[in-house]
Amino acid sequence: MTVDKKIPVGILGATGSVGQKFVELLTDHPWFEITELAASEKSAGRKYDDVVNWFLPSRIPASIGALSVKECRPGLNCKIVFSALDANAAGEIETEFANAGYVVVSNAKNHRYDKDVPLLIPDVNPDHLDIIKQQKFSGGMIITNPNCSTTGLAVALKPLHDAFGIEALNVVTMQALSGAGYPGVSSLDAMDNVIPFIKGEEEKMELEPLKILGAFNGTEIINADFKISASCNRVSVIDGHLESVSIKLKNPATESEIIDVLINYKSEPQRLKLPSAPLQPVHYFYEDDMPQPRLLRNLESGMAVSVGRLRKCNLFDYKFSVLSHNTIRGAAGGAILNAELLAAKGYLD
Amino acid sequence: MTVDKKIPVGILGATGSVGQKFVELLTDHPWFEITELAASEKSAGRKYDDVVNWFLPSRIPASIGALSVKECRPGLNCKIVFSALDANAAGEIETEFANAGYVVVSNAKNHRYDKDVPLLIPDVNPDHLDIIKQQKFSGGMIITNPNCSTTGLAVALKPLHDAFGIEALNVVTMQALSGAGYPGVSSLDAMDNVIPFIKGEEEKMELEPLKILGAFNGTEIINADFKISASCNRVSVIDGHLESVSIKLKNPATESEIIDVLINYKSEPQRLKLPSAPLQPVHYFYEDDMPQPRLLRNLESGMAVSVGRLRKCNLFDYKFSVLSHNTIRGAAGGAILNAELLAAKGYLD
Amino acid sequence: MTVDKKIPVGILGATGSVGQKFVELLTDHPWFEITELAASEKSAGRKYDDVVNWFLPSRIPASIGALSVKECRPGLNCKIVFSALDANAAGEIETEFANAGYVVVSNAKNHRYDKDVPLLIPDVNPDHLDIIKQQKFSGGMIITNPNCSTTGLAVALKPLHDAFGIEALNVVTMQALSGAGYPGVSSLDAMDNVIPFIKGEEEKMELEPLKILGAFNGTEIINADFKISASCNRVSVIDGHLESVSIKLKNPATESEIIDVLINYKSEPQRLKLPSAPLQPVHYFYEDDMPQPRLLRNLESGMAVSVGRLRKCNLFDYKFSVLSHNTIRGAAGGAILNAELLAAKGYLD
Amino acid sequence: MTVDKKIPVGILGATGSVGQKFVELLTDHPWFEITELAASEKSAGRKYDDVVNWFLPSRIPASIGALSVKECRPGLNCKIVFSALDANAAGEIETEFANAGYVVVSNAKNHRYDKDVPLLIPDVNPDHLDIIKQQKFSGGMIITNPNCSTTGLAVALKPLHDAFGIEALNVVTMQALSGAGYPGVSSLDAMDNVIPFIKGEEEKMELEPLKILGAFNGTEIINADFKISASCNRVSVIDGHLESVSIKLKNPATESEIIDVLINYKSEPQRLKLPSAPLQPVHYFYEDDMPQPRLLRNLESGMAVSVGRLRKCNLFDYKFSVLSHNTIRGAAGGAILNAELLAAKGYLD
Repeated sequence: MTVDKKIPVGILGATGSVGQKFVELLTDHPWFEITELAASEKSAGRKYDDVVNWFLPSRIPASIGALSVKECRPGLNCKIVFSALDANAAGEIETEFANAGYVVVSNAKNHRYDKDVPLLIPDVNPDHLDIIKQQKFSGGMIITNPNCSTTGLAVALKPLHDAFGIEALNVVTMQALSGAGYPGVSSLDAMDNVIPFIKGEEEKMELEPLKILGAFNGTEIINADFKISASCNRVSVIDGHLESVSIKLKNPATESEIIDVLINYKSEPQRLKLPSAPLQPVHYFYEDDMPQPRLLRNLESGMAVSVGRLRKCNLFDYKFSVLSHNTIRGAAGGAILNAELLAAKGYLD
Repeated sequence: MTVDKKIPVGILGATGSVGQKFVELLTDHPWFEITELAASEKSAGRKYDDVVNWFLPSRIPASIGALSVKECRPGLNCKIVFSALDANAAGEIETEFANAGYVVVSNAKNHRYDKDVPLLIPDVNPDHLDIIKQQKFSGGMIITNPNCSTTGLAVALKPLHDAFGIEALNVVTMQALSGAGYPGVSSLDAMDNVIPFIKGEEEKMELEPLKILGAFNGTEIINADFKISASCNRVSVIDGHLESVSIKLKNPATESEIIDVLINYKSEPQRLKLPSAPLQPVHYFYEDDMPQPRLLRNLESGMAVSVGRLRKCNLFDYKFSVLSHNTIRGAAGGAILNAELLAAKGYLD
Repeated sequence: MTVDKKIPVGILGATGSVGQKFVELLTDHPWFEITELAASEKSAGRKYDDVVNWFLPSRIPASIGALSVKECRPGLNCKIVFSALDANAAGEIETEFANAGYVVVSNAKNHRYDKDVPLLIPDVNPDHLDIIKQQKFSGGMIITNPNCSTTGLAVALKPLHDAFGIEALNVVTMQALSGAGYPGVSSLDAMDNVIPFIKGEEEKMELEPLKILGAFNGTEIINADFKISASCNRVSVIDGHLESVSIKLKNPATESEIIDVLINYKSEPQRLKLPSAPLQPVHYFYEDDMPQPRLLRNLESGMAVSVGRLRKCNLFDYKFSVLSHNTIRGAAGGAILNAELLAAKGYLD
Repeated sequence: MTVDKKIPVGILGATGSVGQKFVELLTDHPWFEITELAASEKSAGRKYDDVVNWFLPSRIPASIGALSVKECRPGLNCKIVFSALDANAAGEIETEFANAGYVVVSNAKNHRYDKDVPLLIPDVNPDHLDIIKQQKFSGGMIITNPNCSTTGLAVALKPLHDAFGIEALNVVTMQALSGAGYPGVSSLDAMDNVIPFIKGEEEKMELEPLKILGAFNGTEIINADFKISASCNRVSVIDGHLESVSIKLKNPATESEIIDVLINYKSEPQRLKLPSAPLQPVHYFYEDDMPQPRLLRNLESGMAVSVGRLRKCNLFDYKFSVLSHNTIRGAAGGAILNAELLAAKGYLD
């Protein structure tokens, strides 16, 4: 796919942590061009440069910094809106935009479980996209990406689910601070500490993979039928969610078979050569002590998932560790890949 | 028990991380008095002050700093030797000391699995102590305490094992840096990172609780018969091992029954009022986000274990989080409590 | 001084970072007893336990947690109020309390530079206390302690100022996160980072030592006449402000003379044996790499100041490093010592 | 300059912290190609992949990982050797290589102060390069780059020295952990701490800028004649040295004049468009709280220096903060820029 003219896009919640990541990743995007930045009422009317507390180790592009921030209401000059809104605002605003004819690509949880909204990871369930045909917004549509701790896990599970079937899954997360937004976690709580709780996170992790790995029969998505137990912890890491996973499979598999299906897995984004797609969705590391967040979170521009330490389990069949970048693969990058799939599939024409 | 004259003790491996903790905890101990510090050949003959790279946030007591460091060979002027030796040296040296008539109270793994050596947590299996009568050292004896990640877990499991029986256990650890000794983990590996591997740790955690919770029939210790799966991670925390635990019980239990047995648990150290014993071995915290290492590791001078977040599990019966201080409860403090039990039970007379 | 009956005290701003430290340090105080906790309107009427986000590694005493929080208005049942209020609220409220007859012992900056208010460090300028006789509040009084980064420095400077005179002073600070209050600095700003700016801090450091080291002639305080330049940085440390100091003296001094006057310095709090007074206000460390925050901040319960690395300077006369605990010596502990001096001097009778 | 055939280069000390950075930065270099990796005897003969403990968040290129590591002795198949050797080994080995005809581009301190060895920063003193004509090695040559904490400072000072003259300089550093090599600083010393000492660092910082900013008269380098006082601290930051600088100028300058000369400064590397040269050696940031290591260390691929917080000083003329990447601009990247200057100037022909 080549693009004659870039598609104009807006970002809702552009000053927050995920909003900043959208700005960073959409700057110089080959298909999309940021034309609108929207945020809360008190930021509206001022330059982005003047209202954002930019905390990313990149510089704000001058052309973006000069944009005048708008309110989060239809009337924005763009075709797609990427929503980085908080859950307490996202639900209604996104519906309003969809009804006004916008393509809403959301990172918020509000519409994830709606029956006619795909909870989409292009590498995992690209076929779920078609359910948007059942949406009844006046002209627009809504698609969502999963919670940051779910995404990396689901990418790693998909090849195993396809090849061997999953019967049960236990996951304990060690999640990065950036997952809590900005300012998010106080440094006094984060340093020299672990917080063994993230509000609402375990519930999402025990539910979302079942919809994502579910089967779309043309009419509805039938959730996958295995059980998940999740325990979520916040650790002193800037970016990168690490997860200790135990898995029981439906069919027998050797370690090398498992590694083979992981590293050979390809899906729609690779076939379509979507700009943000990793060449290889899952990488396996044979070193004893991998994957480590600081070393591997940026693999393939933060869009690849790292797996390591596959070994037999005394209780389940196997244990392994999964790592993925929570604000790239698990949030802004994942949403952009969703929009790319929409574009490549002709949904934006 | 009152003490007319303090019992002279030595510390083997006195300059290392656990050795320093022994020095700190034994200074001003009501029953024991440090008379000997032993370390590697290259430190021998020099003042402790001059050879130790003290990294604890307390000061070395002047009288201790002035002691001349000896080699780790029998001939030390003391009755008990606390062993903070590395596993590659501990095995033989400890045997040598036991054969020379010393009471060896070891934190090393080497003799933990010997049939006639108790793997002792006074709050959990004080009756196992009697197995030392089967030891055949010439005059001396060896007792050991478990690995730092096992101890806190075993203390929390004991009341549950007694009350409801344990059928299966999954544990994912987030372990502190001090567990790796000093200098241990490079700051470049620790900062902004998690290392999903600790050499030999999972093997210990899957084995040691079974011996500790095993039954001593007067002749031998019969291991407990449930299965454990452990995944061990190193996080950026100075002290305090946090563990996400999932448990399947043999008999049904409600949440309040579980909390009741945890917080009401008392054992020998409490009855004997051992100097280092916590008043309450297990504390339960009802706050959503507890236990946190920085806030609770020093509970009851680092000898109490903290539990929180008890909740139903989709796969096992319950999930909860356990925290304990790895160099106090899980190493030096635990070993000292072992020696106190020996003293109170008349084994040092 | 012995106390028949403890003096009832209240804490204004009891839920904040410094407020929590007041609660911790005043629990079990030999002279004072917490009878009142006051905070913002929205906390008033609720139990302290239920409104405070306690982040200290100690537990809230049960009797304190059960106290009903009041609003910050006169009518509290106590003689002294310790003010841990923010500067934007402290000014007026403290005046109101003083006018209502309360002894206000404040950690806020608002009244520090009032001509009739002592900026008090009992180890440094106990004679400044008498200036409160000039205060015209109806029955009450206000005394203040300096900014956290000033206090430790002033304690270390006092013996040098007395013995040799100070001509010029350059100081670069590396200040702890707890100095910014709670939640204060975002973990995303603090981790793997230094922030080379603390609002208003350099101004305070360039002014406050001059008043503290000034001479009180019975009528007014004449500021000391040397020049100070301060550069303030926020580093990734929980507690303990470290400062790199360069000093030009009025009279010549050798290194050993300087160390001698530092370690032999004693003042009113030592002579009066005030409960919170360090035995030795300044400790000198000869090790190459001291003082380090994690190792020395709690020296003498956090009330002693640590100095090290005294050496010749190419531009000034000498350079050295100073460390002190910012929320103990530099805030709550310092204020409590102020109140103890008031009590011992008969100002509370 | 275009390159027909890449120049073969080797790396001495290729497994260490700076060695790894050389590997990373020289991979895909437009002019140079890594043909040899050399390290200690015990690594020699094994594959680089198998002996290096790679801790950078990039992957080892496959072609490099497969190279067989050699010993650090002449006989390597390359023209240039980049030396990342420790000071205790570098002196002799570098001389040996120079005598064997190699171009030695060293990051070690050993030859920095030799009269005929340039202490080179191409943006600062490119004319010093010519002093190598006085070297008497048999065919080869040695050039060095300064200490990591000196380099960023010298780049920022050069425009000021040229425009206004420097009379005196006080600098207090907050240096990153990677400056101590790998494994370097123990995590137990680094976390929640600052270490106010770096061995030998203050001496280097008080000397090296004088040679770098000195005048080369065709025969010898006459050191600049101002005085420097340095105080060096190690903070809990992975990469990026931050420095609080106070400066007295010979001639008057306004703030805007200073900022103008800083941001408009260009030198040889910019004119020659050397591949590793930053477009703008010094960037000035007007935000209150800049430069911060985590946000700005990678500016212009880590080769640009960031300055901020320029303000009047009570003792000197001005104060400001300087930041630069210690392992890129201050070590491997600086050495590579030196080699690029050598190539562009025809010294490699």
